[in-house]
Amino acid sequence: MSVKLNRNAAGRLVPDVVNGREAVPYAGVGGHRPTGRRAAPAIATCLDYPADGDKRVGSIKEALVRVGLSDGMVISSHHHLRNGDAVANMVFDAAAELGRRDLMWFPSASFPVHANQISHLDDGVIHHIEGSMNGPLGAYCSAGKMRGLGVLRSHGGRWQAIQDGEIHIDVAVIAAPTADAFGNATGDRGPAGCGLLGFALADSVYAEKVIVVTDNLVPFPCLPWQIQGNNVDVVVEVDCIGDPTQIVSGTTRITESPDRRRIAELAARFCADAGIMKPGFSFQAGAGGTTLAFAIYLRDLMRSAGVTARFARGGSNKYMIEMLKEGLIEYILDGQTFDLDAVQSLRDDPRHVNTSPFTSYNFHGKGNFASMVDVAVLGATEVDTSFNANVVTHSDGRLLHGIGGWQNCLTAGCAMLLVPSFRDRIPVIVDEVTTLCGPGELIDVVVTERGIAINPGRRDLLDAVAGSDLPIRPIEDLKAELDRICGVPQKVSRSDQPVAVVKWVDGTVIDTVWRVDCS
Amino acid sequence: MSVKLNRNAAGRLVPDVVNGREAVPYAGVGGHRPTGRRAAPAIATCLDYPADGDKRVGSIKEALVRVGLSDGMVISSHHHLRNGDAVANMVFDAAAELGRRDLMWFPSASFPVHANQISHLDDGVIHHIEGSMNGPLGAYCSAGKMRGLGVLRSHGGRWQAIQDGEIHIDVAVIAAPTADAFGNATGDRGPAGCGLLGFALADSVYAEKVIVVTDNLVPFPCLPWQIQGNNVDVVVEVDCIGDPTQIVSGTTRITESPDRRRIAELAARFCADAGIMKPGFSFQAGAGGTTLAFAIYLRDLMRSAGVTARFARGGSNKYMIEMLKEGLIEYILDGQTFDLDAVQSLRDDPRHVNTSPFTSYNFHGKGNFASMVDVAVLGATEVDTSFNANVVTHSDGRLLHGIGGWQNCLTAGCAMLLVPSFRDRIPVIVDEVTTLCGPGELIDVVVTERGIAINPGRRDLLDAVAGSDLPIRPIEDLKAELDRICGVPQKVSRSDQPVAVVKWVDGTVIDTVWRVDCS
Repeated sequence: MSVKLNRNAAGRLVPDVVNGREAVPYAGVGGHRPTGRRAAPAIATCLDYPADGDKRVGSIKEALVRVGLSDGMVISSHHHLRNGDAVANMVFDAAAELGRRDLMWFPSASFPVHANQISHLDDGVIHHIEGSMNGPLGAYCSAGKMRGLGVLRSHGGRWQAIQDGEIHIDVAVIAAPTADAFGNATGDRGPAGCGLLGFALADSVYAEKVIVVTDNLVPFPCLPWQIQGNNVDVVVEVDCIGDPTQIVSGTTRITESPDRRRIAELAARFCADAGIMKPGFSFQAGAGGTTLAFAIYLRDLMRSAGVTARFARGGSNKYMIEMLKEGLIEYILDGQTFDLDAVQSLRDDPRHVNTSPFTSYNFHGKGNFASMVDVAVLGATEVDTSFNANVVTHSDGRLLHGIGGWQNCLTAGCAMLLVPSFRDRIPVIVDEVTTLCGPGELIDVVVTERGIAINPGRRDLLDAVAGSDLPIRPIEDLKAELDRICGVPQKVSRSDQPVAVVKWVDGTVIDTVWRVDCS
Repeated sequence: MSVKLNRNAAGRLVPDVVNGREAVPYAGVGGHRPTGRRAAPAIATCLDYPADGDKRVGSIKEALVRVGLSDGMVISSHHHLRNGDAVANMVFDAAAELGRRDLMWFPSASFPVHANQISHLDDGVIHHIEGSMNGPLGAYCSAGKMRGLGVLRSHGGRWQAIQDGEIHIDVAVIAAPTADAFGNATGDRGPAGCGLLGFALADSVYAEKVIVVTDNLVPFPCLPWQIQGNNVDVVVEVDCIGDPTQIVSGTTRITESPDRRRIAELAARFCADAGIMKPGFSFQAGAGGTTLAFAIYLRDLMRSAGVTARFARGGSNKYMIEMLKEGLIEYILDGQTFDLDAVQSLRDDPRHVNTSPFTSYNFHGKGNFASMVDVAVLGATEVDTSFNANVVTHSDGRLLHGIGGWQNCLTAGCAMLLVPSFRDRIPVIVDEVTTLCGPGELIDVVVTERGIAINPGRRDLLDAVAGSDLPIRPIEDLKAELDRICGVPQKVSRSDQPVAVVKWVDGTVIDTVWRVDCS
């Protein structure tokens, strides 16, 4: 693959063409303005759909034939079933049986269970994948084995790419824990209940053809219709869409590491001392062990101070549900349901609200929720002294993680990175991040177990905690201490073969991921 | 205005150009296939919206300036506040103050309260109206005083016209009984609570600019977000969006006329005897006095037979709510909320479900709910012996009613017209309807107090009631009896000036309304 590389506004080398499409280089925060109109599917007509609303066909293979799957098409899927998903594998196995080739897979994320697709990549059924690749597919991409470039987008960036017509989905396949024969579908009930189906919403609205696959068919109307049957072409019943034990996340366990607990506690105290934790405030916290611990510490501080939050955004889990029930949070604006308590709450409690990347994250909308959140607590693999951060590669250059909502959350009133000082004796604060995912000007606070660094651009935050006993330190100081302890690791030399690009929230290319030869 | 008239597939003369747009003549039921892609608004960016989500401006006038209202633009509004709406008048008064001219008003329906707009039509602020015109505006249009043609569309046809890009809404104004500063809005609560806002949904999604006007601002998040703030540009607070006493309908009163009660009872018995009223069936009934009585008779028959309905569609009212609470209906799929009991039920009962013209009626979707309903009970102003029906004009040619969901409901398993034999001593069954709104092949049963006529095309229905004691009669017999009683009224001669057109559900022109010189 021969591509021209340009230096973008962040000084990063990025290809000018990505998978045959012209790529716009990152132009700085707020530097890119979109033009044109949203994508729009072909106008349908009821003449082509059964009047009784029964859109069922016998098998996934039959469904793919019915919607006209042909070589080179784009097939999308969602990741609400996480590592328990059985449907994406069935789809590509069926496509292979049909002899289709050069398909592009456009999942909202892929997991180790999807290693099944490696043979389809090797055999040419799948040309390449655009979407988060966790585990074996990430390694496959990292090693330069994929024919096209991986494209990593945030949840909001995926909506933006679909909405803006950058990605034209030919066939969306939506694994549905419950559905009716018309195609109305919900994730909040059924044997494979996973809560939300928000990551599939854009697919259902913008894809040319939509297939709903379910193992729990109910009589019309299936309610709530998280996915509306009026956008659906075909419904397929299968025995099982996924393994429930793998659908809910294993990440909803509070960290037991003393260092990480200290990070979480410092972060929570920062929110209190800086005055962010005030009546009617809002916060976003994910499902990682440290951020879970943060939520617990924050809860205790809120209780002590008698402060309640207007809403919490982000992934939901049993700790958030407890806070909702206790009245510490008025609403959960949920983007992803991480455990069974959360699935039940979403189903039964009207204060637990289904959101989508459109409402929460899409940067090419008329505002979104992310910028209205007072504080977002996030992780990172690396952060540099200008507060630029990496969340997709490790310092050895290997692509191991997706972006999720991480980039989108950086517009919060206060974006905090909660990171350990070291990982495997490698300092997390570096001179230059391996892969730039988030521009430093949007990252306000870095919390480590050795101290809290505040972005000098946030004079207001520095002032707000000036009198507190929190260990506030310049980020250069923190870095110097880490370097004294470990030494500055030798820079890993990178190949000059791009294997993936990282998109910014506005669709521009912020950085490139390069091939690494893993042992 | 000089337009060429063509004869369409129903033999009706229709203009080839309507308000400057080429018009497709009706091509028969299922005779027209759409081409092209859906409309799509310009891609927005969060750069243009406040990060804190507060989109408020001080007044409607300021909002109109902010969204760039200019001469000749299309302004849309919804009619959920019915004759209590104060917002549409405020909008055009403000547009007049700004000196704007030649605007097109695109309401989902207009009411007598909107007679305010007559001066704006006279003065050139409004060029013409496309949308149902009830009362004075209908008379104004009928008299040929409007510069453009009225265009009458069904609820589904309005969605279709917006979705297909036939109507490009420049500015949608959404009167919201409750909203937050981000633009999330709901109709199910607040001083002017009207229940749903479904008629404004297409406007919010497809309009270039969207203004939410509310008299009940709540802190973010306003839930449920029937209208999503992510589609909204500007929010305006006003003292009062409408008169609550005029918002809920006066039509939810069961008829006291013995003839109409008999019609209702015959219709209900027909449903039972024909086997339509079976376990898990579905029905649609509106808010008119006769159809309300139908629902009561049906309820009694359902109770006696121990039959429950899976769902009821259409407008909701206290009688439907009682049936829902009693368990006679499992779900109400609501399109329009007609009284305060229904508003409360929609807000509090998860079995009472918010629907939109997209889910229920849009013919250019991947199916819709209307065709899945087992029986729909409707009215008409005239029906001919081929079962063609009229719902917008009276036999004197005056335009007096909108189409509502009437056309859309004709795809139900059994479409029944409940009509009195006479109105003002004029027979309702005629040789030829004044205005064709619904093709006879879709109208299955006509119920009058003198007997029930079944469309000969529905052999199955004729067979189903063959053994019953219902007064089943050929429609010609019914007509002959009416004519014997009243005499055939003299045909009203019509002018040759079109004042409005009637669209079919697929966007084609099914008939023309001609100028009449009212006294």
